[in-house]
Amino acid sequence: MDTLQRIDAFWRAANYLSVGQIYLLDNPLLKEPLAPEHIKPRLLGHWGTTPGLNFVFAHLNRVIKERDQDMIYIAGPGHGGPAAVAHAWLEGTYSEIYPGITQDEAGMRRLFRQFSFPGGVPSHVAPETPGSIHEGGELGYALAHAYGAAFDNPGLVVSCIIGDGEAETGPLAASWHSNKFLDRDGDGVVLPILHLNGYKIANPTVLSRIPEPELLKLMEGYGYRPHVVAGDDPAAMHELMARTLDEVFDEIAAYKDGRERRLPMIVLRTPKGWTGPREVDGKPVEGTWRSHQVPLARVKDDQTHRSMLEEWMRSYRPEELFDADGRPRPEITRSVPDGPRRMSANPHTNGGLLMRPLVRPDFRRYAVEVKAPAQHRSEPTRVLGAYLRDVIAANPRRFRLMGPDETASNRLQTVYEATWKEWNARLLDVDENLGPGGRVMEVLSEHLCQGWLEGYLLTGRHGLFNCYEAFIHIVDAMFNQHAKWLETAQKIQWRRPIPSLNYLLSSHVWRQDHNGFSHQDPGFLDVVMNKKATVVRVYLPPDANTLLSVVDHCLGSRDYVNVVVAGKQPVLDLFPMEQAIMHCTRGLGIVEWASNDAGQDPDVVLACAGDVPTMETLAATALLREHIPDLKVRVVNVVDLMRLLPDTEHPHGLPDAEYDALFTVDKPVIFNFHGYPWLIHRLTYRRHGHPNLHVRGYKEEGTTTTPFDMAMMNDIDRYHLVMDVIDRVPGLAVPWAHLRQRMSEDRLRARAHTREFGEDHPEIENWTWPYS
Amino acid sequence: MDTLQRIDAFWRAANYLSVGQIYLLDNPLLKEPLAPEHIKPRLLGHWGTTPGLNFVFAHLNRVIKERDQDMIYIAGPGHGGPAAVAHAWLEGTYSEIYPGITQDEAGMRRLFRQFSFPGGVPSHVAPETPGSIHEGGELGYALAHAYGAAFDNPGLVVSCIIGDGEAETGPLAASWHSNKFLDRDGDGVVLPILHLNGYKIANPTVLSRIPEPELLKLMEGYGYRPHVVAGDDPAAMHELMARTLDEVFDEIAAYKDGRERRLPMIVLRTPKGWTGPREVDGKPVEGTWRSHQVPLARVKDDQTHRSMLEEWMRSYRPEELFDADGRPRPEITRSVPDGPRRMSANPHTNGGLLMRPLVRPDFRRYAVEVKAPAQHRSEPTRVLGAYLRDVIAANPRRFRLMGPDETASNRLQTVYEATWKEWNARLLDVDENLGPGGRVMEVLSEHLCQGWLEGYLLTGRHGLFNCYEAFIHIVDAMFNQHAKWLETAQKIQWRRPIPSLNYLLSSHVWRQDHNGFSHQDPGFLDVVMNKKATVVRVYLPPDANTLLSVVDHCLGSRDYVNVVVAGKQPVLDLFPMEQAIMHCTRGLGIVEWASNDAGQDPDVVLACAGDVPTMETLAATALLREHIPDLKVRVVNVVDLMRLLPDTEHPHGLPDAEYDALFTVDKPVIFNFHGYPWLIHRLTYRRHGHPNLHVRGYKEEGTTTTPFDMAMMNDIDRYHLVMDVIDRVPGLAVPWAHLRQRMSEDRLRARAHTREFGEDHPEIENWTWPYS
Repeated sequence: MDTLQRIDAFWRAANYLSVGQIYLLDNPLLKEPLAPEHIKPRLLGHWGTTPGLNFVFAHLNRVIKERDQDMIYIAGPGHGGPAAVAHAWLEGTYSEIYPGITQDEAGMRRLFRQFSFPGGVPSHVAPETPGSIHEGGELGYALAHAYGAAFDNPGLVVSCIIGDGEAETGPLAASWHSNKFLDRDGDGVVLPILHLNGYKIANPTVLSRIPEPELLKLMEGYGYRPHVVAGDDPAAMHELMARTLDEVFDEIAAYKDGRERRLPMIVLRTPKGWTGPREVDGKPVEGTWRSHQVPLARVKDDQTHRSMLEEWMRSYRPEELFDADGRPRPEITRSVPDGPRRMSANPHTNGGLLMRPLVRPDFRRYAVEVKAPAQHRSEPTRVLGAYLRDVIAANPRRFRLMGPDETASNRLQTVYEATWKEWNARLLDVDENLGPGGRVMEVLSEHLCQGWLEGYLLTGRHGLFNCYEAFIHIVDAMFNQHAKWLETAQKIQWRRPIPSLNYLLSSHVWRQDHNGFSHQDPGFLDVVMNKKATVVRVYLPPDANTLLSVVDHCLGSRDYVNVVVAGKQPVLDLFPMEQAIMHCTRGLGIVEWASNDAGQDPDVVLACAGDVPTMETLAATALLREHIPDLKVRVVNVVDLMRLLPDTEHPHGLPDAEYDALFTVDKPVIFNFHGYPWLIHRLTYRRHGHPNLHVRGYKEEGTTTTPFDMAMMNDIDRYHLVMDVIDRVPGLAVPWAHLRQRMSEDRLRARAHTREFGEDHPEIENWTWPYS
Repeated sequence: MDTLQRIDAFWRAANYLSVGQIYLLDNPLLKEPLAPEHIKPRLLGHWGTTPGLNFVFAHLNRVIKERDQDMIYIAGPGHGGPAAVAHAWLEGTYSEIYPGITQDEAGMRRLFRQFSFPGGVPSHVAPETPGSIHEGGELGYALAHAYGAAFDNPGLVVSCIIGDGEAETGPLAASWHSNKFLDRDGDGVVLPILHLNGYKIANPTVLSRIPEPELLKLMEGYGYRPHVVAGDDPAAMHELMARTLDEVFDEIAAYKDGRERRLPMIVLRTPKGWTGPREVDGKPVEGTWRSHQVPLARVKDDQTHRSMLEEWMRSYRPEELFDADGRPRPEITRSVPDGPRRMSANPHTNGGLLMRPLVRPDFRRYAVEVKAPAQHRSEPTRVLGAYLRDVIAANPRRFRLMGPDETASNRLQTVYEATWKEWNARLLDVDENLGPGGRVMEVLSEHLCQGWLEGYLLTGRHGLFNCYEAFIHIVDAMFNQHAKWLETAQKIQWRRPIPSLNYLLSSHVWRQDHNGFSHQDPGFLDVVMNKKATVVRVYLPPDANTLLSVVDHCLGSRDYVNVVVAGKQPVLDLFPMEQAIMHCTRGLGIVEWASNDAGQDPDVVLACAGDVPTMETLAATALLREHIPDLKVRVVNVVDLMRLLPDTEHPHGLPDAEYDALFTVDKPVIFNFHGYPWLIHRLTYRRHGHPNLHVRGYKEEGTTTTPFDMAMMNDIDRYHLVMDVIDRVPGLAVPWAHLRQRMSEDRLRARAHTREFGEDHPEIENWTWPYS
């Protein structure tokens, strides 16, 4: 048997196993004629893309063996889950990982039965699937994941199958340009294989129907050298594909040597549902959208359909592929690469195996000195920049900082003392901090930042994504999918923990001085909170030192999504470093120096989370102490939002007794919150003191205006908080009506000043804590 | 003065006015030397993109006048807000709309002062800006908006400036292919102008740095005929741009005549911050990223910077542009098109002006017959399809149905009896329901569906976006921006109401039979709820007739975002049409036939929202009636989620007394919810009965399994609800311990059946209400 015949045998075997997974409960080797009881009652799966996935996989294996190539396989059309499962089973990986699914008839039966079956495995490529870092669900991210995996893996080739459906999505369309961010020396190579099978669920695809010269120009315009492999005759296609892959890998070698600027890509045109039923019930199926899911739908009840299925499966000549016990014959196993060279077992696809912990410098070294609280201001993210600079320096090939053109805007530019921005397109004299091999990835696409980082983390490296707070919503859906991946992966023993996905959200809702309403949305936290408590963490450090402590903690964690919201504008330094660490470790606590309820029950609790709300809370506290000195005020600051949840709901949740001790059970609590106020209610509605909890936050009011005007527009300002206290603490309303009135007038005065002079009153802008 | 000189004068005037807006409080005509008190204290705005926006606008005006061309202008780089404001003021539109901002020195002073100033106008193009349908905030949507505006406007040219920063985003990258969905006869034309000024905030841009042949191939690959206009010498550039625009509009005419297949586009290369300061403090500024915001930062305090500003502004020779009273000179006003031909006053950009109400057939005609409740099943979206078919037929050129390749999957395919899918690429024999002029827009990009629809609605037409529920998160950010647009536009008198943005979310979390965990996310509702009550509406009709009633209502509404969640799988028909209408009009209500508390206080309230949760609630009710017939159960179904909010929070909010009458103040309420359970708590935490409210919903458990197994995984199933009732109704726990035990065993039995047979037990799957 020659090489192409062996490839064909592997392909037929994978196709056979794919069809079996979709249809069969039993009789896996067709030892008897197919009967209704052999058929699954619910036929769930996607055949259309599967033969193409199998075809590519079979051919790549030859390259791996011949060139001893380190390669992984990203199945953009991961709906074709049966394909990836079939590959792993044929390569022996499946049985190694799931010993119950043996490489024999009994194992094949279980393999078929479990697929898309209650208690079994999902119908898509998923964390359960060995050899994958890419969920086959939401489309658009395959190529970005591929590039993320290639970064800092100079010997690796990431093959990436892109369905022509997925190619219509925005994130995928943007991902082609990732090649401008690939370093020839330090990074690996991505081999995009655009698989045009012509149809998505129910429609033709755009790229399959534009004139081929236009398609090739598009690929050249993206900066690739396209190769076309088109046809439907298996023998001819095997030859063409093999020849093309030889050329392609020669070109890759030429690129790595510096003899060639561009990387190759392949346009693969094969029929949708290739080798499946040609026609069913008088309608064409192979080569049309009707192959998308299950080409034969009534197999259990309809004898004709059942015979067609049997004929279809027998067309792969299973007797040549498997021995009488269901074991793959040597012709097949001989075409499988060895051990970790198998794409289904490549350790890059179980990144935790390869992960080396991040070297973290002692974050205390970067602390801002705080002799007395709330007397001076720092820009928290600027302070953090120095720490990140040294993280980058200490981890030369395993940490990346992602930002959609916002790293400097978010004031992290100190990192450029240790690195620069990855850039492989043309350089000009005026450029600064640009070049190949940079650790900072800047592209104006949140999708690419997120997709690259996911691919990087899933292959065992570390990173941080800094982003304007409002625009992180652009990747809500990607966050959801990554969180779901982690939720599932945590339960799979053989999947090793990977570094957490860390977000630093800055340029936040309260300080959009240049931009206004469209840039004001703190609602990502609401999206995050819907995911499982085992995965999500949210932090709102109120100053520079707490930010350092929180980020250091996040960078050391595994298998989480950490969201850190922090300001870039100057905010008051509240805590010396040792206090900051203690405060962050607790996650929330009484701000002793701002409270005057020493050891007693307070009359009111002023709680706060986020830098601007915290400053306004402190200013309100000072006003109260000045005007109503007898009022016992307790200030509670919350850094770790999950502490507000009951301990039954989240591992960080505060036990009720501790919550009650901090917030009281019966005193009014005015909570000044960074985000949409109802999020706090959602977290606390089961707490004893909840009926007395009053939350201020962003209520969707804003424009381009001054910071204090923004606070006033949303009633989170100091004056309004004092009014809230007077309104809510029993017994204050009447005696302090004049103070309430004065606060109301102070607001009007502040607004008038802003409207006249275009800036906040200096006393407000430069306010410091007066009782140090 | 020849034409090009007039264009140059308009350009200089717009540039002058743009700089004035960014910098000046006073002395608008520079009648005296610039002094600190003339300068704004906070310099907020974006100069970099502005001269390019002005250049294009000035040149397009010539084309409009010469060809009497109906044209609008979409400023993708809407950060250059001063440009759009300057255009509108020069064209007289600004003073017509805002009479306080006169076309004279006093008006110019106010124009400058109000820009990005507290109490003034935002720094970006925004709803406040005449002539715009495109907010200048989040980037990526300009070209999709442009195509949306062009659909069904055959005489219109939509010019669309695309910044090279925005061009890196995914949604923009996908939007280029919108030309495959443009009908030569029925639609207008989009003229993309890719403005390469070379830099985004702090980095060069990808498209400005790739080799020009590669860039041109990319544009040809997208299916356009590119024209390059590059340079920095104004005189030469005026000539080149004018000549190119003549060619381009000739090509557009040839396209409209059918003589040319492709449409043109322009690559415009000009320096960032063109005509601004060349060098500041020894660093190059014009032509670099340093021009992005404010090239001269210390103008108020630094005499050198202030002199440079004055020199810069005088370089536009304001004395040639404005008379002594600040009025634009005739040379300028003569280059302005007439009335509604002015791009700042084109009625397409205030779509409510052109809107004709949608003709809606009587939705009662499509009703499913319901002789007895919950005896038969229908597929709600399939029933809706017939209604939508007739909406489409009745509104030939002003309704579109958008779907990311999911319209048939969502079972709306009856619409193809009246129309087909818009498609202008190649057609094959096997294709069905495809061709030019179709009312259904199918592309595998939620971003395009959303962007097209927004552009279509903002220009006064109607539509519906059908989408898988989980993947609507892909456009969370776009939804946010559109909601913000509506929130602002509602407060602007001259902006006329436009049709609502309607979402139909189907293939929802509970019925992802083919797909599993990645397709399960009902969290879009949580995102929606963060926007203003004046704008957002959420409906969960539980059956076919309520779906008809709700969608008909939504299609008739204005200025809202309506989210409708409905199933495509068979669900029980609950309400005859007249009852359905009453129920939807109330928004929530007691399901009388399922309740047995007639006229009395119930022992427990079983509330529900969503089709699957409602069915499980009914089944639980039946079990309770069977086993504990004395227990008085009230079933409340919620269609309009906003009814749960207090009436102080939302116009649909139920007054407390009515809420209490429905849900009681002291009885246990078990609420079975379609989405994440805490959303219900967030809506109801202020209600009297809230401490007794227990919510079941999706708690992030799922995979590819049967519908009932999905319900059980998340504890929303009938058996678990009965257990909840026994646990929560005082006095039931002990006497009914055996029933609780039995329910628990029934769950295990149901699960075992599913695991064995791969499908739900027929008694569960085919359950109907037994007490009719």
